[in-house]
This record gives sequence, C-alpha cells and structure tokens, in this order.
Amino acid sequence: MAPQSRLLPPALQMLRRCRCRASRSHFSTAPTLVSPPSKAVVYDEHGPPEQVLRTVDVPPVEVGDRDVCVRMLAAPINPSDINRVEGVYPVRPPLPAAIGGYEGVGQVHAVGPAVTAPLSPGDWVIPSPPSFGTWQTYIVKDENVWHKVRSDVPMEYAATITVNPSTAFRMLQDFVKLNPGDSIVQNGATSIVGQCVIQLAKVHGIHTINIIRDRPGSEEAKNKLKQLGADEVFTESQLDMKNVKSLLGAMPEPALGFNCVGGNAASLILKLLKQGGTMVTYGGMSKRPVTVPTSYFIFKDLSLRGFWLQKWLNSDKTEDCRRMIDYLLGLVHEGKLKYEMESISFGEFSLALEKALGKHGSHPKQVIRF
Amino acid sequence: MAPQSRLLPPALQMLRRCRCRASRSHFSTAPTLVSPPSKAVVYDEHGPPEQVLRTVDVPPVEVGDRDVCVRMLAAPINPSDINRVEGVYPVRPPLPAAIGGYEGVGQVHAVGPAVTAPLSPGDWVIPSPPSFGTWQTYIVKDENVWHKVRSDVPMEYAATITVNPSTAFRMLQDFVKLNPGDSIVQNGATSIVGQCVIQLAKVHGIHTINIIRDRPGSEEAKNKLKQLGADEVFTESQLDMKNVKSLLGAMPEPALGFNCVGGNAASLILKLLKQGGTMVTYGGMSKRPVTVPTSYFIFKDLSLRGFWLQKWLNSDKTEDCRRMIDYLLGLVHEGKLKYEMESISFGEFSLALEKALGKHGSHPKQVIRF
Repeated sequence: MAPQSRLLPPALQMLRRCRCRASRSHFSTAPTLVSPPSKAVVYDEHGPPEQVLRTVDVPPVEVGDRDVCVRMLAAPINPSDINRVEGVYPVRPPLPAAIGGYEGVGQVHAVGPAVTAPLSPGDWVIPSPPSFGTWQTYIVKDENVWHKVRSDVPMEYAATITVNPSTAFRMLQDFVKLNPGDSIVQNGATSIVGQCVIQLAKVHGIHTINIIRDRPGSEEAKNKLKQLGADEVFTESQLDMKNVKSLLGAMPEPALGFNCVGGNAASLILKLLKQGGTMVTYGGMSKRPVTVPTSYFIFKDLSLRGFWLQKWLNSDKTEDCRRMIDYLLGLVHEGKLKYEMESISFGEFSLALEKALGKHGSHPKQVIRF
Repeated sequence: MAPQSRLLPPALQMLRRCRCRASRSHFSTAPTLVSPPSKAVVYDEHGPPEQVLRTVDVPPVEVGDRDVCVRMLAAPINPSDINRVEGVYPVRPPLPAAIGGYEGVGQVHAVGPAVTAPLSPGDWVIPSPPSFGTWQTYIVKDENVWHKVRSDVPMEYAATITVNPSTAFRMLQDFVKLNPGDSIVQNGATSIVGQCVIQLAKVHGIHTINIIRDRPGSEEAKNKLKQLGADEVFTESQLDMKNVKSLLGAMPEPALGFNCVGGNAASLILKLLKQGGTMVTYGGMSKRPVTVPTSYFIFKDLSLRGFWLQKWLNSDKTEDCRRMIDYLLGLVHEGKLKYEMESISFGEFSLALEKALGKHGSHPKQVIRF
C-alpha cells in the first residue's frame, strides 16, 4: 500500500461539488452543516490491495437534512473486502475513487435537521444492511442507512457482527429445520463463521461435528473449539476411513452441513450427512471444487445449495437484518458469542492489510480502530 | 444366461407350500382357484446377468380370495433391472429365487372371489406402483397391486410407461415451477427419459435445450430429437466455448436442468443454467462425478438435487402414480409421446438380455413379449 496521505482524488472532488450544488439549488438559508475533514482508504483501479489502496484526505462534506454524520470507531478487513479491491468479487463499489470496507461501527457525530430516526450524538451505529466505504474516519449518509446498536459490547464485535456471525446465523436458520438434539457438520471450523456456528448451535441445543485441517497445532485448535462448545472435532485425516459414521457414537447423523473449503473437506461433509441431508457452500478456501458422486444425489438424496450473505441482504430484509444484529450483539453481551480479533490503529492500516493478506503468518481478523 | 428351463428352485417351492398350507388353515371349502403353470426368469445370487439368470418352470399357484391372476403380455429389460441382478442397485428383491423385472403389462386371467376392484378377465393391468417379478408369464398378486390401463395403445408402451416416462414427468413437476415459454436444459437427451422430457415439455409449452455426446451420427440424432420437438440440440464439443449463452438466442436461460451423465456433460448444464437455477441428477452414464466450482453455489446460487423414481413411488403416492400413468398413456394414444423400443419374444430372452447389455452394439430398449 502506498503510505502517503493525499488530497481527495479528482473524481471524489467532483462528487462533492455536485452534491453541494444540488443542495444550494434548494435555496436553503440555514447555516450549512458539514462533516469534519476525514481520511479514507480508497482505490482507483482493481489490483493487489497493497499496491492500489491509498489513504487520502477528504474535505468536509455537507450533512443533508436527513443525513447522519458518523465518526467511525472500528471496521474490519474482511477477505471479501480484499476480493473487492482485487476486482474478483461480483458486487463491488464503482471505480474510480472507491472507498474500501463494508461493515464497521461508528458514533453519531451530527444529525441533519430533518432526521426522524431516534439517533443522537454519541449513539453507536452500524450501516445495516452494511454498505461500501467503512474505511474512513467520518461518513455522511442518509439516516436510513444507520442502525443504532448497544454500546456495552467491545467495539470490535459491533464492527464485525454483520458479515461473519450473520452468515452463521442465517445458514442455521434458512435451509433445514433443526430441533434441539439434532446435529450439523461443518468444515473450516476454526474460521470465524465456523466458531459462530458452534456457539449459535449450542445456544439452540444443536450438536456440532467439526472438521479442521491436518496441521501442527491441530490438538490446540481442537481444544479451543471444544471450549466454544464443539461436540466433536476431527482432522480431515481422521475421517479418511470407511465406516466414518461409527465415529459419531450416539450423536444423530447430521441433516445439514456447511462447506467453506471444497475439495476433500467438502467430500467428508457429504459422507457424514444423513440420507436426504443438505450441504450449504459459503466459501472455497482450498480453491478446489466440490465433487459429488452421482449416487449421493440419486440414492442418498442429498441437496447441495449455496449461501451468500450479500444476496440475502439485498432481498429487502432490513428489519430482519437489524433484529438479527440485535440478537447477536445480545449473545456477545452475555458472553455466549466470541471470536478472536486483533485491533490495530488506522495509522497502521498498511501493516493490518499485510497481516490480513497473510504476509506475516497466521493472524486473527484485523480490525481497524479509527 | 443359462438357457435351460428348469423346475422351480427349492426356495420357491417352499414359498408355494407355505402359502397353500396357510390357505388350508382357513378351512375353505370352495374349489381352489389356481394359476396356470408359469415360466419365470430368476436368479439365486447376484452377478453378471448372463451368468446368474435362468428361466424356470413355476407350478400353478393358488389365487387367494383377493388375488388377481395376470397373464403377462410384455415387460422391458431396464438398466435398473440389470443393476438389481448385479447386486449394485440399492433396492432389490430378496435372494434366493428372485424373479427379475420391475414393470410390465398383463391381461387379467382370473380374479379371486372376494376381489372388489373393477377388474375382469381380458383387462389390461400394470403393477402400480411397479413391483418386482414381471419377467414371468403368469403373476398372482393382491388386487391392490394392479392398475387397469387402456388397451388401445401398443403394449410396449403400457409395459414401459412407469419407469422412464414417469421419471421425466416428475422431474418436470417436482423441482421448479415452470411456465409456458420457460426453458429447461438436459444432457443424455437421446435416452428414453430424455426423449420423454422433450415431448412432455413441448406439451406444456416449455422449450428444451438438449446436449448429446459427440459421436458418428450425431447429426441424425439431432434431427430425430428435433422431430420430437427439441428446440435446440448441441453436442458437448459445441458447448465448449466461453460465451455459451450466446447460443441460446432469444430463448430464456433455463431455470432447471436434468443430468443423467455426470462429468463434463453435467458441467455444461451448470454453465447454461440461469442464476438461482436447479440441476437434478437422475443418472450417471459416464460414471464420472459431478464437479462444481464453489462460485456456482455462492454467487450463481445454483441448487443441486437428485431424483430417484423408486423413492417417490415408495412415498405412498399410489393414487398420484396411477393418475400420472393414465395421463401419460393418454399422450401415447394421442401420438404426443413416443420412443423407440424393440420387441422380442420371451423364448429369446437370452438374446434380448445380450442386446440390453450392449453386447451387440447399440440397440433400443428391449421389451419382452410373453
């Protein structure tokens, strides 16, 4: 990443100018409310994030009648944020002058005079549904964008509650009706979604069978997941056997499986699923496809589906989304939902990005504090 | 197949003795109704059909109060019949003394005195749901087994109407709501199910995009399918291009696909399906698995399902099944549903079997006439 801080790129300047002109055409006489000057991480073209991202200064922006100006507190660097910068994610902000980031939490700084939402300076808010451009110090957007959230949880959780925990929540809700005592199976169980699946399932009395990679430290990883509530944790090689279901003991065969890996790790889920079960794919970390023997479709009657939170969010579910967020933050507050993150100051964005890109070995999710 | 005709094997003899003894315990004084002597194609162990199948003489069987004795007219040799003999099909008749065959048509020969179903000698009947043991000249089974069908269609159609045409019918009905003008895509389009899909879709105003193997004579195969009503027919290699949807012209992208091949032919269906589409696998002729890139699940939101007629038949749908059969035979009568078959006399069962096993090149479905 180019570390220098620059002035707003020409395209963004033009955007601001248009906005102010539009506002003036209303012949408003009230003193204009503007945001403080801001800093943002932007990109003008797709490419390797460390090359195309740069931090720019953004001049004050007018706060419209129904706008809310939010001082950002924290925002994560999610893998999908990186994919958007790279240009390999199907839904991306338009270029040039795209601002990075998709979720985060901020504090209300100022509200426009016609805002009717119960938002006051100091309140914590998140963009909900999430929206592009959370990697900046001040954001001015319509009041409808913002959802007030509780402020008695660590800000890193409020900043990250939408993308990963909601994915876990929806996948447990939207595919197979599960009852207490049922079980599910997942691979990539050490991912944040995987950890959330374990904990959300536990809250609802659902058992989890978890698959992790074979690697040094896999025993430690198993123990961590068991402390979160995992019933069973296996490495892939442990499941490389014929009568794999004998490993489940008295646990019911899972009717639902979550795949974020592909390749062999997905095949193991298909093997463990019960007759008529469903596997939901939400990631492909191994970059290998899912391979399915014909008999699994015909005789085992398996269904294979996919889940993409962004599609769910686009389907006009704002109220559902906000209720879900409140529920999930409630679990965080009760200590029933936790996952590891690493906070890092905005000034060190380049270092956080390198860590998120895996250039310094394995690191927890990077959360920028502004 | 051992061509000699033998007496009933010991296990079958025992079965008959038990049945007669049970009947005598009712102290019936009416003269006992018995079937004519019969011939059946049976197997005592699983293995290569030409080795384990043999024709045996079956002595007369008592026709119970609610039984119907049927003289079989015709029964096909389906691939699943062969797989059952080989022991590789999940649902099979018990050994030893299993009688081959699963569907067929017969003529009522005699009815038990307490039969209430409107069945009279001469009526055409099929076992519906189909049941094991249609490769024999006389069958005695409970009246509930038999469904009276119209006798003004060629008997080969009545004999084969359940397994293949019903599969096509159900797959068009049970997965995606289709409206006139919509389209579907299928591979293995020259199979009987494939031909039925084309014709049933046409009846309902649904367009079909058909994929066939590259082979000598593919142009002739294309023309045959187009005569049945296929809108588009492509060989696999024709679809080996990037912008494959440009081939569809004004036809809507298909929301539903049927796969009976696997491997590349299944991948082509996935490529052609529209966003949110469903592929139903009902066969695996290439013996290659279905391979799915992760992005097809997540971003293209494809669903992959399976269909097995036997499971549907087992789910207590007898009335639905019989209505469907009547509808399909109606289409046969109107000339709207046809497919190629080859009749062969029961005395030449061994030859028919060899043809069905592909030992004499490519042949249409073999239908035994008794």
